[in-house]
Amino acid sequence: MEKGRVLLAITGFHPRRWHELLAAEREVVSEPDSLTDPSITYAVVWKQRPNLLSTLPNLRAIFSVGAGVDHILADPTIPDVPIVKVVADNLTQHMTEYVVWRVMDHHRQGMLYHAQQKKKIWHEPPQRPAGDIAVGIMGMGNLGRAAAAALLSLGFKVNGWARGEKVVDGVSTFAGESGLVPFLNATDILVVLLPLTPATQGILNYGLLKELRRRNGLGGAVLINAGRGRLQKDADILRALDDGTLKEASLDVFEVEPLPKTSPLWGHPKVFVTPHAAATSDPNHLVPPMLDQMDAFERGEPLRNLVNRKEGY
Amino acid sequence: MEKGRVLLAITGFHPRRWHELLAAEREVVSEPDSLTDPSITYAVVWKQRPNLLSTLPNLRAIFSVGAGVDHILADPTIPDVPIVKVVADNLTQHMTEYVVWRVMDHHRQGMLYHAQQKKKIWHEPPQRPAGDIAVGIMGMGNLGRAAAAALLSLGFKVNGWARGEKVVDGVSTFAGESGLVPFLNATDILVVLLPLTPATQGILNYGLLKELRRRNGLGGAVLINAGRGRLQKDADILRALDDGTLKEASLDVFEVEPLPKTSPLWGHPKVFVTPHAAATSDPNHLVPPMLDQMDAFERGEPLRNLVNRKEGY
Repeated sequence: MEKGRVLLAITGFHPRRWHELLAAEREVVSEPDSLTDPSITYAVVWKQRPNLLSTLPNLRAIFSVGAGVDHILADPTIPDVPIVKVVADNLTQHMTEYVVWRVMDHHRQGMLYHAQQKKKIWHEPPQRPAGDIAVGIMGMGNLGRAAAAALLSLGFKVNGWARGEKVVDGVSTFAGESGLVPFLNATDILVVLLPLTPATQGILNYGLLKELRRRNGLGGAVLINAGRGRLQKDADILRALDDGTLKEASLDVFEVEPLPKTSPLWGHPKVFVTPHAAATSDPNHLVPPMLDQMDAFERGEPLRNLVNRKEGY
Repeated sequence: MEKGRVLLAITGFHPRRWHELLAAEREVVSEPDSLTDPSITYAVVWKQRPNLLSTLPNLRAIFSVGAGVDHILADPTIPDVPIVKVVADNLTQHMTEYVVWRVMDHHRQGMLYHAQQKKKIWHEPPQRPAGDIAVGIMGMGNLGRAAAAALLSLGFKVNGWARGEKVVDGVSTFAGESGLVPFLNATDILVVLLPLTPATQGILNYGLLKELRRRNGLGGAVLINAGRGRLQKDADILRALDDGTLKEASLDVFEVEPLPKTSPLWGHPKVFVTPHAAATSDPNHLVPPMLDQMDAFERGEPLRNLVNRKEGY
């Protein structure tokens, strides 16, 4: 099989480095010369223009450049070819770091100490050890399992919730709708790493946050969302923060991104904002396995890490 | 051997809980009834009044309630009896958490994101993985080795420096005066867990900070001091921050504590201040092993975790 041509279909950021790395081994186009270009075999995409992929008669596979694939599936016209997810140690490492960072900052009362420093207050609040705190992870795929392992090694209790049953060493796992409330009731710090699907959109609403454990060693419940912005209701999070349902939140993602300047989340004293930066896709680490998969595919091997379209991830 | 009486000699905080827990098993006095009380066998101390211990004719051992013992040795009149250090999982856990928390916050650019949030700036700076960053730990005792293990498991490179040669799995170790500059030259984030001794007092001066690696994946060198305040020169740290020798610092300890309101460290945008709270001695965890040691000593067993007075720790 001949080396297939690659369409690089990225919106929202400049794909210079992605282009360089792909082009070192394959012919790459950024816009198809014609909308029925028969030479394009692969598409490497991030939020591609709607209807773009549907016009390519010989497309064999779509590669996502981000951890989620909701940005691809948002276009109902995409052709029925395999979609390959990103599974890369580099991305997992970045996400694990983010989760450990934010969990540790809430656990060790970073927000309180920042506020005290501003007022030159020398005061030590009670500090519980990690073993008294239960971190609950929603989404127990590659990212969730890696974060769980790191948190366990630091001494935290870890709960895990996923759509289906999972067994993960050292983690108390809960599954499906019936497992959700028991999971939340046993969780002090909620870490969200879910994919965005029709089933998860808006799942982080006031009612869910209300089920978190608030009488705990932290003095309240904490939300950390590093999944997707549309999992959450920004307004519900603000309400929960303001009435004490939540003590604090770290948000890497938002309903609308970039977060509008008018959002009260920016200035909220109990919210830590990062710009969808928990685990950025680094082309230096992600392009080589994509190229490897294309080569293997052309040798007749199956593609790996495929999206289940029905489940949406 | 009869159950020895305990003198609880603590200044600077209220020892109520320490008293309760010790008194559950032994007779405890907070001030000796007479300055030559022959019934007092043990002293449990934090910054005891000078000359207090020297008057006790039958003192058999001194127990420190804090991780360091400089506060005991500061009194040259203390009698020549064994001094028992605190070695407790609880204290080690707290310190490891603090080190991971502060290392991760500097590594993941917490200060930058805080500043950006204030200005509602949605911007993602480059982010290197932990494996590109070398954390150097000064002081490879129980606390240093535990912190090293946690940092290694999170993917950081770890260097260790100690007075004498040490072998620690996965850690590049450096020893003594001749090893100090090579250690610093290979270190991006310096974590200080040294004891305060005549040899270490003031060791964190401008000249030392100048040797840290500044051309690195963080964009500068970082200092984290969770050892003792008098290891450092506050003024030298400020100078190093202001001329770029240091990028940022997390300081849990200070030359004078509580940190005076007049100190420019409080308001410095590149300094994170905590009130000597990295690893607080929790009497619930520390008293039981003290009582166990007293019981064992009275059965004729040797005391463990003794201070070497010549080395000062």
